[in-house]
Amino acid sequence: MRGRFITLEGGEGAGKSTQARRLAASLGARGLPVLRTREPGGTPGAERIRSLLLGHGPWDPVAEAMMMFAARREHVVRVIRPFLDAGGWVVCDRFADSTLAYQGAQGLSREVWAGLAAIALDGFAPDLTLVLDLPPDAGMARAAARSGADRYERMGLPFHAAVREGFRRIAAAEPARCVVVDAGQGPDTVTAAIQAAVQARLGIAPA
Amino acid sequence: MRGRFITLEGGEGAGKSTQARRLAASLGARGLPVLRTREPGGTPGAERIRSLLLGHGPWDPVAEAMMMFAARREHVVRVIRPFLDAGGWVVCDRFADSTLAYQGAQGLSREVWAGLAAIALDGFAPDLTLVLDLPPDAGMARAAARSGADRYERMGLPFHAAVREGFRRIAAAEPARCVVVDAGQGPDTVTAAIQAAVQARLGIAPA
Repeated sequence: MRGRFITLEGGEGAGKSTQARRLAASLGARGLPVLRTREPGGTPGAERIRSLLLGHGPWDPVAEAMMMFAARREHVVRVIRPFLDAGGWVVCDRFADSTLAYQGAQGLSREVWAGLAAIALDGFAPDLTLVLDLPPDAGMARAAARSGADRYERMGLPFHAAVREGFRRIAAAEPARCVVVDAGQGPDTVTAAIQAAVQARLGIAPA
Repeated sequence: MRGRFITLEGGEGAGKSTQARRLAASLGARGLPVLRTREPGGTPGAERIRSLLLGHGPWDPVAEAMMMFAARREHVVRVIRPFLDAGGWVVCDRFADSTLAYQGAQGLSREVWAGLAAIALDGFAPDLTLVLDLPPDAGMARAAARSGADRYERMGLPFHAAVREGFRRIAAAEPARCVVVDAGQGPDTVTAAIQAAVQARLGIAPA
C-alpha cells in the first residue's frame, strides 16, 4: 500500500523542525517506515539549489520560484515518490505551500505559482498539511534566538505578516488537505494537536 | 528606439562563439551599442546556475529545464531587456531554442518547454535567430579538439543528431524568426551568410 505524505508549513520560529522530528519518531514507533526530510533540499542536487537560493540573491521572483520548483521536482522524483510507492511515510518540513506563501509575499502571482506547480508536480500533493500558525512577532523572536539567520529570516515584520496570511489563505482554500495548528501553545500541546490531526485525517494514532 | 535581439543557435562545434564575436564586432563598427552574451549564464546568479547545471547532474529533465529558464529569466530581466530598451543590440550565444533542442533530445516534452517559456519570458523572443547547422559528426570532431568537454559534449552521436533535428524543426516552424546557416562552410563564408541574413531581416548591414 502506498504510504502517506505529510507536510509541515508555517513561518519562521513556528517549531516545524521540532514537530517534524517528533511526528516522524512517533510514526516510526508505530512500526511505519518513515522518512523525515525538508525543503528546499532533500537530494544532493536540490541541496545545491538550496545553497544558491539562500546564500545569494536577491533573485527575480519568477526565477526564484522556478529554482524552488526545480529543487522540489528533484526531491519528489528521486526521493519522496519512490519512498511512498514502497509503502513508506514521508514527513517533510516545508513543501509547495511555502513557495506560494514566501514568494507570494514578494510579488509572485498565484497564476505563475500554479503553472510551475502543475509542470513540476503533475498533480502530486500532500495527503495532509499541518500549518503551524504563529503571530509573526512571536516567530521572529524565536528565530532570532537561533544563530545564523538566513536571507528570509532577516526580512522585516510586514513580510512575515504577509507570509502568515498566505499560509492561512491556503489552509482556508483547501480544508480537506490542511489543518491549522496554533503554534503559540507549548511544544507538547502542539505535538498533541498534530497527533490528533494525523489520527483524524489519516486514521493512524502516532505512538 | 528599442534595439534588436539576435540569438545564435546550433550544436557543439558549429562555430557559434566565433560567429557571435564577429557579428558583435561588425555591428559595433557600425556605431551600434552592442552587448555580446551567452546562455546559460550572463548574470552572476545565472552563471552560478550554469555551474550547477554543467558541473553536476544528471538532473531530472523537467528540473533541468526549470533551472535553465530560471537562469534565462534572470538574464532577460536584469541584462537583455534593459539593454534593448536603452536602444542597444544584443547578440546572444544560445537562448530558449537550445533548451528545447537539448532537453527535448533527453525527453522533455514540447508542452513543458512551452509552459516554462511562457512563464519565464512572457512573450519575449529574439528578433532574429541564426541556426548554425552542421552534421553532428563534424561538430563533435571540432568540439573534441577543444579541451575541457562539458557534460553535453561528452554525450554520444545519436544525442547530437537528435539535437540537430530539434534545431531544424524549430527553424522550419518559425521561418519569420529563424535563418538556417550551413556551418560546414569555412568561417568567413559563414560570417558572410550571417551578415546577409542580418541585412535582409533587420535592415542593418554589419560593417
